[in-house]
Amino acid sequence: MMPRGTLTRQRDDGSLPERVARSAAARDGVSGDVRDFHAWFAARRAAGRFAVDRIPFDELDGWSFQDGTGDLAHRSGRFFTVEGLSASVGDPVTARWQQPIIRQPEVGILGIVAREFDGVLHFLMQAKMEPGNPNLLQLSPTVQATRSNYTGVHRGAAVRHLEYFTRTDGARILSDGLQSEHGSWFYRKRNRNMIVEVTGEVPPHEDFRWLTLGQIAELMRSDNLVNMDSRSVLAGLPADVARRALHSDTDLLSWLALMRSAHTVRTECGPLSAVSGWTRSAASIDHEDGRYFRVVAVAVRAGNREVSQWTQPLFEPRGEGVVAVLTRRIEGVPHVLVRARAEPGFLDTVELGPTVQCTPANYAHLPPAEHPPFLAAVTAADPARVRYSALHSEEGGRFLNAQSRYMVIDADEATAPLDPPFGFRWVSHGQLAVMGRHGHYVNVHLRTLVACLNALWATAPAAGA
Amino acid sequence: MMPRGTLTRQRDDGSLPERVARSAAARDGVSGDVRDFHAWFAARRAAGRFAVDRIPFDELDGWSFQDGTGDLAHRSGRFFTVEGLSASVGDPVTARWQQPIIRQPEVGILGIVAREFDGVLHFLMQAKMEPGNPNLLQLSPTVQATRSNYTGVHRGAAVRHLEYFTRTDGARILSDGLQSEHGSWFYRKRNRNMIVEVTGEVPPHEDFRWLTLGQIAELMRSDNLVNMDSRSVLAGLPADVARRALHSDTDLLSWLALMRSAHTVRTECGPLSAVSGWTRSAASIDHEDGRYFRVVAVAVRAGNREVSQWTQPLFEPRGEGVVAVLTRRIEGVPHVLVRARAEPGFLDTVELGPTVQCTPANYAHLPPAEHPPFLAAVTAADPARVRYSALHSEEGGRFLNAQSRYMVIDADEATAPLDPPFGFRWVSHGQLAVMGRHGHYVNVHLRTLVACLNALWATAPAAGA
Repeated sequence: MMPRGTLTRQRDDGSLPERVARSAAARDGVSGDVRDFHAWFAARRAAGRFAVDRIPFDELDGWSFQDGTGDLAHRSGRFFTVEGLSASVGDPVTARWQQPIIRQPEVGILGIVAREFDGVLHFLMQAKMEPGNPNLLQLSPTVQATRSNYTGVHRGAAVRHLEYFTRTDGARILSDGLQSEHGSWFYRKRNRNMIVEVTGEVPPHEDFRWLTLGQIAELMRSDNLVNMDSRSVLAGLPADVARRALHSDTDLLSWLALMRSAHTVRTECGPLSAVSGWTRSAASIDHEDGRYFRVVAVAVRAGNREVSQWTQPLFEPRGEGVVAVLTRRIEGVPHVLVRARAEPGFLDTVELGPTVQCTPANYAHLPPAEHPPFLAAVTAADPARVRYSALHSEEGGRFLNAQSRYMVIDADEATAPLDPPFGFRWVSHGQLAVMGRHGHYVNVHLRTLVACLNALWATAPAAGA
Repeated sequence: MMPRGTLTRQRDDGSLPERVARSAAARDGVSGDVRDFHAWFAARRAAGRFAVDRIPFDELDGWSFQDGTGDLAHRSGRFFTVEGLSASVGDPVTARWQQPIIRQPEVGILGIVAREFDGVLHFLMQAKMEPGNPNLLQLSPTVQATRSNYTGVHRGAAVRHLEYFTRTDGARILSDGLQSEHGSWFYRKRNRNMIVEVTGEVPPHEDFRWLTLGQIAELMRSDNLVNMDSRSVLAGLPADVARRALHSDTDLLSWLALMRSAHTVRTECGPLSAVSGWTRSAASIDHEDGRYFRVVAVAVRAGNREVSQWTQPLFEPRGEGVVAVLTRRIEGVPHVLVRARAEPGFLDTVELGPTVQCTPANYAHLPPAEHPPFLAAVTAADPARVRYSALHSEEGGRFLNAQSRYMVIDADEATAPLDPPFGFRWVSHGQLAVMGRHGHYVNVHLRTLVACLNALWATAPAAGA
């Protein structure tokens, strides 16, 4: 017989929430403070010498519209393709439309290496250029790797630090799950979001820097600095551990099962050339009303990417988005008003999304009654109630200048009742964190806001536990 | 200000595991004991006067092969269709094949009403005929309703007790989640598995009976008595609450993320007439080698169904299945050896399945080295190690005589090492229960075995907590 306790372990890592809170409280780290960060980041920006230029489609290298389907694809058959999608989504109203969509069936890895210095968890972040970022260089996870990256289709350099995420036997994994990406632009794309803690030394490199959660939280107050992949991965850390909530965990899962049953989402991929309502010109594919987004092409020159220059298509939204949550403390427990969102590219019909997630310009032609619920409450919010507001851009490897204003707004019963309209639900911060451990529950926009909330609320432990 | 505690509640229903254990220990209930049950069930069988006859396809009423596609469909466009599927599944070997598959995009409800009598939870079970069951009448959940049922496409009677599952505001929900069905025969079909507790009286009816979990567990030792839907729903109850396991919960989720990333599953639905390797005759669609399953048609006459007679297609497997888990107590904590299973009809690439799930006859032509891992260990197990063995049949509304031998077998390091082959993993009983609360983690075969394990292990609380 083995002595008791040598084979099994505690199912939960009970010490992690405390360690996360300690890191969130730390504004000084092993690499100095935030001013030191900005000096380093400015140096990385100066060293980069990046240029991104719009080009017509026929100057794309290796990419072309396929005979027959008109799909935009790379000659290797890898990376991603732009195809057509027919969607019908409804409850109670059924909307039907066609659109271009990005297909990339492979699962990528978004990974952050964590390590304790002086008893405080630090996260290894990377200054990384992506062509669609408004300011090109942003703060990224340790690793962003598509399967094409790590199987060598790029014919570029190996992805630095990838081995921490592909050889995890014996590693201390802090979080790991498959999470959806933008369901309006990607067809069932997901990435593996991972945080792996190491104890040994990680070889230093000028593009990488150890930061505490408190520092990252401070940086998230800057516009367009912490990239989408970083925000998404960091949302996987445990946060508030209050054991009370407006609804029990079982009731929350039940409500989500109801929402997934009630919403009908039918999608069919088809040839890009057959998509109606969209027209292709020399340098873009546009919606006939000039709304939603365009498909464009760019040429990229860069110093520190795996491949030093390339061309590629990007999706370019036509307006700035608004992504916001209304929040309330209910008997001391922080809650978020989420919406069951149906997006055509989700693997499952609906996921939890923010209270408001839209591009207001797409609704400008409609009467106010047809605007998204709570949009007016968000855009006209009393500044004293705005707890968080910053511009963030979406995945810069696929989306060009896809900026949204992300906001956290304190609400009250008058603006956001505890018994909200159909499709909305109050979820505690702790419940959101638990849902976020499982895939396909919390959409990518809400994950950004969860990362913000983790930072906002970390230093103010919830009552009501 | 509201007084503290009037709006929020505990996120977890901490008392439920204990109440479930009490019900599992009860062999006498409000409706008597198991002998009383058998008398009632025999009476229901005698009262039913059911007959199911095989018919050629051209005697189907309302069902026909569609022009062009050859798909088998109902003229209403509802219920389900039999279409073609092309699948390629692999890691590391890629298998490619085509087959008929059932498409039924709507989400049905499988619901059990629970109520306490004398402080013991009882579950309202129904004696229900389904044409594919080997013995026609089996014990079903309180409600089995397709969307066609409750929107009236059947033009039959309303589904009894459905309102407990469609009007849940204020109800005490014990479990509720969308769960996958057979991924080899259904394309992305799922049902909402619900248990709802009531406090008021439920109108009695001769086809319904209150049973304790202990009684249901005893009945599950009989062949073909407790139907698949009942087993699936009952698997959603909490069981073992040991806080220790061989792997932490985070490591388990990480392993599943790896399995879902590593497996490639590509599926495409297409016309049934284009499926290669299958031939259609007057009364069946068969695989060219006589393996896997057949598509057949039956005529049904019944007394207590929503509609008194009808015809329909069914899938008929060609051999008896073996569905088994190897189990071990590791430092006192019960564990199950699960396999990451890729089935073409799963919404996500893989789910957790039993150690062994196959139809041995489909492998009879292959050398032993190509038989499924652990199949020999299961079929040749020392009878002293067989903790559970019974024949159960799958969903009798879609599958004809789809019987498998379900087994639970005690293993040791020699037959089932703690470091198992690629694709296998030891998961504690408590972890399986938690995974089962979320959809698309635990496949329908493993859910049957979880229901058995809940019964087997309920009266022997685990050490190691």
